[in-house]
Amino acid sequence: MDDVYKASLRLHREHHGKLEVKSKIPLENKEDLSLAYTPGVGQVSVEIGKDPALAREYTLKRNTIAIVSDGSAILGLGNLGPLAAIPVMEGKAILFKKFGNIDAFPLCLATQNSDEIVETVKRIAPVFGGINLEDISAPRCFAIEARLQKELSIPVMHDDQHGTAVVVLAGLINALALKKMKKEDAFLVVNGAGAAGITITKLLLLYGFKNIIICDSKGIIHSGRTDVTDEKEELAAVTNRANKTGTLADAMAGADVFIGVSKGNIVTEAMVRVMRPDPVIFALANPVPEIDPVAAKRAGAYLVATGRSDFPNQVNNALAFPGIFRGALDHSIRQFTDEMFVRAAEQLAACIKDPSVGRILPSIFDEGVAAAVADAIR
Amino acid sequence: MDDVYKASLRLHREHHGKLEVKSKIPLENKEDLSLAYTPGVGQVSVEIGKDPALAREYTLKRNTIAIVSDGSAILGLGNLGPLAAIPVMEGKAILFKKFGNIDAFPLCLATQNSDEIVETVKRIAPVFGGINLEDISAPRCFAIEARLQKELSIPVMHDDQHGTAVVVLAGLINALALKKMKKEDAFLVVNGAGAAGITITKLLLLYGFKNIIICDSKGIIHSGRTDVTDEKEELAAVTNRANKTGTLADAMAGADVFIGVSKGNIVTEAMVRVMRPDPVIFALANPVPEIDPVAAKRAGAYLVATGRSDFPNQVNNALAFPGIFRGALDHSIRQFTDEMFVRAAEQLAACIKDPSVGRILPSIFDEGVAAAVADAIR
Repeated sequence: MDDVYKASLRLHREHHGKLEVKSKIPLENKEDLSLAYTPGVGQVSVEIGKDPALAREYTLKRNTIAIVSDGSAILGLGNLGPLAAIPVMEGKAILFKKFGNIDAFPLCLATQNSDEIVETVKRIAPVFGGINLEDISAPRCFAIEARLQKELSIPVMHDDQHGTAVVVLAGLINALALKKMKKEDAFLVVNGAGAAGITITKLLLLYGFKNIIICDSKGIIHSGRTDVTDEKEELAAVTNRANKTGTLADAMAGADVFIGVSKGNIVTEAMVRVMRPDPVIFALANPVPEIDPVAAKRAGAYLVATGRSDFPNQVNNALAFPGIFRGALDHSIRQFTDEMFVRAAEQLAACIKDPSVGRILPSIFDEGVAAAVADAIR
Repeated sequence: MDDVYKASLRLHREHHGKLEVKSKIPLENKEDLSLAYTPGVGQVSVEIGKDPALAREYTLKRNTIAIVSDGSAILGLGNLGPLAAIPVMEGKAILFKKFGNIDAFPLCLATQNSDEIVETVKRIAPVFGGINLEDISAPRCFAIEARLQKELSIPVMHDDQHGTAVVVLAGLINALALKKMKKEDAFLVVNGAGAAGITITKLLLLYGFKNIIICDSKGIIHSGRTDVTDEKEELAAVTNRANKTGTLADAMAGADVFIGVSKGNIVTEAMVRVMRPDPVIFALANPVPEIDPVAAKRAGAYLVATGRSDFPNQVNNALAFPGIFRGALDHSIRQFTDEMFVRAAEQLAACIKDPSVGRILPSIFDEGVAAAVADAIR
């Protein structure tokens, strides 16, 4: 087993997880108790009972979100169920705290039924100022998110979709600026038509890219395909304007940009060589990218981004989600819109004053990243 | 408005509630991230996927409980709904942390339907090592707790019932020891047949008290009453052996102990005077006791306990619930039993080495209280 895995197991066992729930106020004597609990707290309840909007002033709701998963699509590991999802959701929660100063609590559900997930999230919503859906498999994730956005008055976002899409778009904005290429002129291939691939494609279209082909494991998605989900069929109507058919390799021939959110080692050097000159490669499969960055460069890539922290240009959701929810909580927004996500991507791209092929995105440890993104969510 | 209410409102507004969710581990650089989150965390998920019991070792589950309320019976304030319940549940959570070193997170539900509450708690259970039900109105609370105890493999307790019952029994053990009275000889009146009154009565019977009359707002509960819930009917069969009828005053005539979990100012000095000599008065209604302690003493009470911290002998749930859940988590118990609650009461009573009429129960700030109670839950 890799050292990082061994060390992570050790860390988790030693601390029994990563999260704790703490008091923000002192509790040292009877007086403290009489304010934090009875009798004082009774008056706080009475006031909120009269005016429910005061929950935002008097309780944790203002700064607290739920991270909700059913464990059906944990990282790249698949459906391991709710208990196995807990360590990932705890990790996400501490990232929310570190980078967004948000109190996030993980809820891993003992159901994978979409209606039950929606129902459950609606029932637990009162305590929270927002809902981050996480690691819920496609295509269920689309309907679950859409229903919750509609039926709740707090913002709901499936991070595997929008967090990823925001960071990809930000990286792409800087990559094309470096190449001095206009979005209208670029030919893009998105490989992977799950939660991330579909939402990336939609956001890129909204931003103004005109020429996108999206592929799934069976190849190019085109209007003649009869084996696709509703979401893919919708995309077939607005992508692939030349109605190309064929394999991923066929799609990549003549493209400027490859965006992979699929699986490791499925792109060869030969496939990169038939792209247009100086192609941009986002090989985001984790932990093994669609093509090794060194191989991609050898095949002529202008720049390569991956999902990994040990290569340049890490496309890391954590650049987006803490700021997205920080903005949502600070500005009391009730619903996220795609326009907010485009603005967030633009703000994130602008965090790099002087982009280079080795640096199209900030590090999450850079100052001001979450604040810049938060500013876009209003 | 009382100063304590004003100060409590100010405190809650200033901090926006009382709880925060924090990391237990450092997160300062890429290496920290690679252990707490990807890629390291993936291995933790894989291991739990293979052996779900490892969730207890590797995640917050081991030390984390949910405090679940539907806001239907908040303190003595009534049904103010889930948002108004949040400050109370946050207060409870910080007491769990302070006295039991337990991470407790409040979930206030947007439903008051019993089936939906049961269903929801079962669905959110994976993350938690126990469930504390709170401020759910009677008689719904009985069925909700019973079903959850049966259908979940983590311990579930409605604190308004059992927490209160444990502390009342503990106080009574020391009160009767002071009076040198045997439990078999004592005549008790419990006034209030809600969550607390019913469960107190059951626990006292289990402990070995023989002579108990329970009253509700319509007077003595006896086998001839046709206007009672199932729970009260059950109790009618095992209490009130002389099948007395009449009012609370009739019940108190000739009794040794009065336990009120009802409402303020409903016991007069005259009612105390017709009890047997040197009666014990537990006037636990909050914030206004059933009888003022000074008046009770004037009418001949041997000792008086209340729910308030500004009088001697505070019957405070916080003496019980942190230790009860501490024990449950430490000993991985799957279900609470009444026998555990009796032992917890005995342990709690034993925390006072030298009881006096002014001190039959410890203060929650006394060392070792939660540990003593925890030791009973195994």
